[in-house]
Amino acid sequence: MPYRPDRRLITVEAARAILAVHGEPVTRVERVTLDAAAGRVLAANLIASRDVPPFARSMMDGFAVRAADTTGAVEGHVVALSLVGAIYTGHAADVHVGPGQCAGIATGAPLPPGADAVVMVEDTTREGDRVTVRRAAVQRQHVSRAGSDLVAGEMAATSGTLLTPARIGVAAALGLDTLEVYARPRVAILSTGDEIVAPGGTPGPAQIFDSNTAALSAAVRQHGGEPVIAPRTGDDRAALSKAFAGCLDEDLVLFSGGTSVGDRDYLLDVIAEAGTIHFEGLLLKPGKPTVFATVSGRPVFGMPGNPVSCLTNAYLLVAPLLRRMAQLPPAPARSVLARLRSAVESPAARHQIYPVRVEDGDAVPVFKGSGEITSLAYADGYVEIPAGVDAVEAGTVVDVTLF
Amino acid sequence: MPYRPDRRLITVEAARAILAVHGEPVTRVERVTLDAAAGRVLAANLIASRDVPPFARSMMDGFAVRAADTTGAVEGHVVALSLVGAIYTGHAADVHVGPGQCAGIATGAPLPPGADAVVMVEDTTREGDRVTVRRAAVQRQHVSRAGSDLVAGEMAATSGTLLTPARIGVAAALGLDTLEVYARPRVAILSTGDEIVAPGGTPGPAQIFDSNTAALSAAVRQHGGEPVIAPRTGDDRAALSKAFAGCLDEDLVLFSGGTSVGDRDYLLDVIAEAGTIHFEGLLLKPGKPTVFATVSGRPVFGMPGNPVSCLTNAYLLVAPLLRRMAQLPPAPARSVLARLRSAVESPAARHQIYPVRVEDGDAVPVFKGSGEITSLAYADGYVEIPAGVDAVEAGTVVDVTLF
Repeated sequence: MPYRPDRRLITVEAARAILAVHGEPVTRVERVTLDAAAGRVLAANLIASRDVPPFARSMMDGFAVRAADTTGAVEGHVVALSLVGAIYTGHAADVHVGPGQCAGIATGAPLPPGADAVVMVEDTTREGDRVTVRRAAVQRQHVSRAGSDLVAGEMAATSGTLLTPARIGVAAALGLDTLEVYARPRVAILSTGDEIVAPGGTPGPAQIFDSNTAALSAAVRQHGGEPVIAPRTGDDRAALSKAFAGCLDEDLVLFSGGTSVGDRDYLLDVIAEAGTIHFEGLLLKPGKPTVFATVSGRPVFGMPGNPVSCLTNAYLLVAPLLRRMAQLPPAPARSVLARLRSAVESPAARHQIYPVRVEDGDAVPVFKGSGEITSLAYADGYVEIPAGVDAVEAGTVVDVTLF
Repeated sequence: MPYRPDRRLITVEAARAILAVHGEPVTRVERVTLDAAAGRVLAANLIASRDVPPFARSMMDGFAVRAADTTGAVEGHVVALSLVGAIYTGHAADVHVGPGQCAGIATGAPLPPGADAVVMVEDTTREGDRVTVRRAAVQRQHVSRAGSDLVAGEMAATSGTLLTPARIGVAAALGLDTLEVYARPRVAILSTGDEIVAPGGTPGPAQIFDSNTAALSAAVRQHGGEPVIAPRTGDDRAALSKAFAGCLDEDLVLFSGGTSVGDRDYLLDVIAEAGTIHFEGLLLKPGKPTVFATVSGRPVFGMPGNPVSCLTNAYLLVAPLLRRMAQLPPAPARSVLARLRSAVESPAARHQIYPVRVEDGDAVPVFKGSGEITSLAYADGYVEIPAGVDAVEAGTVVDVTLF
């Protein structure tokens, strides 16, 4: 007996509550080079293996001195020191600064033995081997002591930290050229239906090009997943069963098509046999025929076949779960406030997702229909109209979530 | 005679005005697969090569009818039609719907000849070959006509459009499996100085690991550039001259180190000979020793050697120019409002960049010094304190630009 969903529709809030308790973080780890580490998540604590900086160094171009020698130096009452050498960055100091002596020093160069402070070049005058200092120095002035940044053994970043350019810089400063990161969740993408043909292929007279695979794949990458494209599969129960079984090697499964109530929507039968269906329709427009199931604990989304519904639900429902699996922080709020240029209507019983273009600070409605891909081509983002609201007036300031 | 900058410092605003007139968009193009197209910029108009959808199709599961046959149908006064076949998605209609007839039809299936509307399955009852309709249909009801989305020859997206998942979906729906996009600006990254060693290497007693190459490289990728790492080069005039010449094959050059006033800062001499230096220091803390030059129209940044200064200036000054070269829109505003947990001081004469951590809605200052990489490891972003302001009180609500 084929599975026939009873089409109980649940609210978007109820769906989010269900999704919130699914999607375990992926704990597999892999090692990546620093060049490939941006946007990844650290899978081990980053501990300083040595002092940073490893030696006391000058923070200025000037002269390494013994601070006590400069006591009382002011403009008009200078102190004269004898120059005994120069220390450049990258080279160990081969001079000792004794009483009454100084050594030229570059920014970043190691402080020579004997010296305990640096006087800026701007506060000095040099004539041959004689340097006069116009400003008294205090101990450690313009000196960064060994370990001032990180002491060997100190924690520089904890496991679970998102690797930004700044944190990659820290890893480099510790001498690391690779990092252990969590593996990206592998996301199977399976587009189904006799009507779809891969882009680049030749559609028959009743066929269309599959756009959901490409759009879902890009959205999955955007939210930290690794798309794994399953072979497109027609409306054949045995073929769908086999294709679906192949997807179960991955961490998350997204299929599209076959969630309507047509005679040939076999995939729900397959899933109902293999696992548990948690919801099978939403009080959401567009995006009603959306299914969520688990098979052996693995989350499975049945996405609407219509491209607009498919992608908006990817943002609304899949992305938060995927980011949790990827151990990424919630998506940064990418939204703008804009004034609705023309009124939009919404069925009061449903939460509505309304694509808009942002133009001169206005939100311009561009929704043609859930099957109309140009709704997406022209849209910069979407406005959400909650259930219970049946119209939004022109001129209303709305929050546009950017694609 | 070596180039000796006179260290005239200019304001951040003046620097931005200079940068705004440099950095030509890169116009080289390349072809990428849809899978690699997200975040790229379309380099040709995207024109529909055929109608989308290519045929009139049903938007619902139900029955294809002649609307006129259903006139007057209401609950209690139904219209009976005879069922002459079924049309599934992906398969050409092989039935003709004559007067008094209907055909079963699935969502997405082509409307059969003769029919001009679809009645939802929910508004019908079927008994064998007899279908009763409880709701009158109007012409084109639940039908998406051929070309309703895009008509052959219509513009789907213009050259210069950023490729989002939605727009990649549109390209797929048009049957395209590759797209022509603008090449990413190639950005040479040259770290210089006798004191630096590549991560993974073995530093000498006065050496440190180079963190700027890795951090700049990640920031460059984040803003649409393709980093090209030049071999690290010590403080040797001939070697620097050669390394710099090698960088001039790229679209943009970032070097770090060698912009101070030390005896061995040869790179400025090399640049002054090869091109024009537009500014050589900023009223900015940290980040004062920042240079901008052009060599044969090619922008060249001399970044501060200190890692914090280097990266904050990459965000503040390099990223906007790089995005313009990449034909990307300005970086999405990624900032949060937060309450400053403790007071910070700032030299009134300088614009200050202050790294902070965001914790429980507070901005917690983490700046240790411009050479201290942990300022970055612990920071989520930074606060800007304009020139003329010498302190910001604890409790002030500040705008944190996130890294």
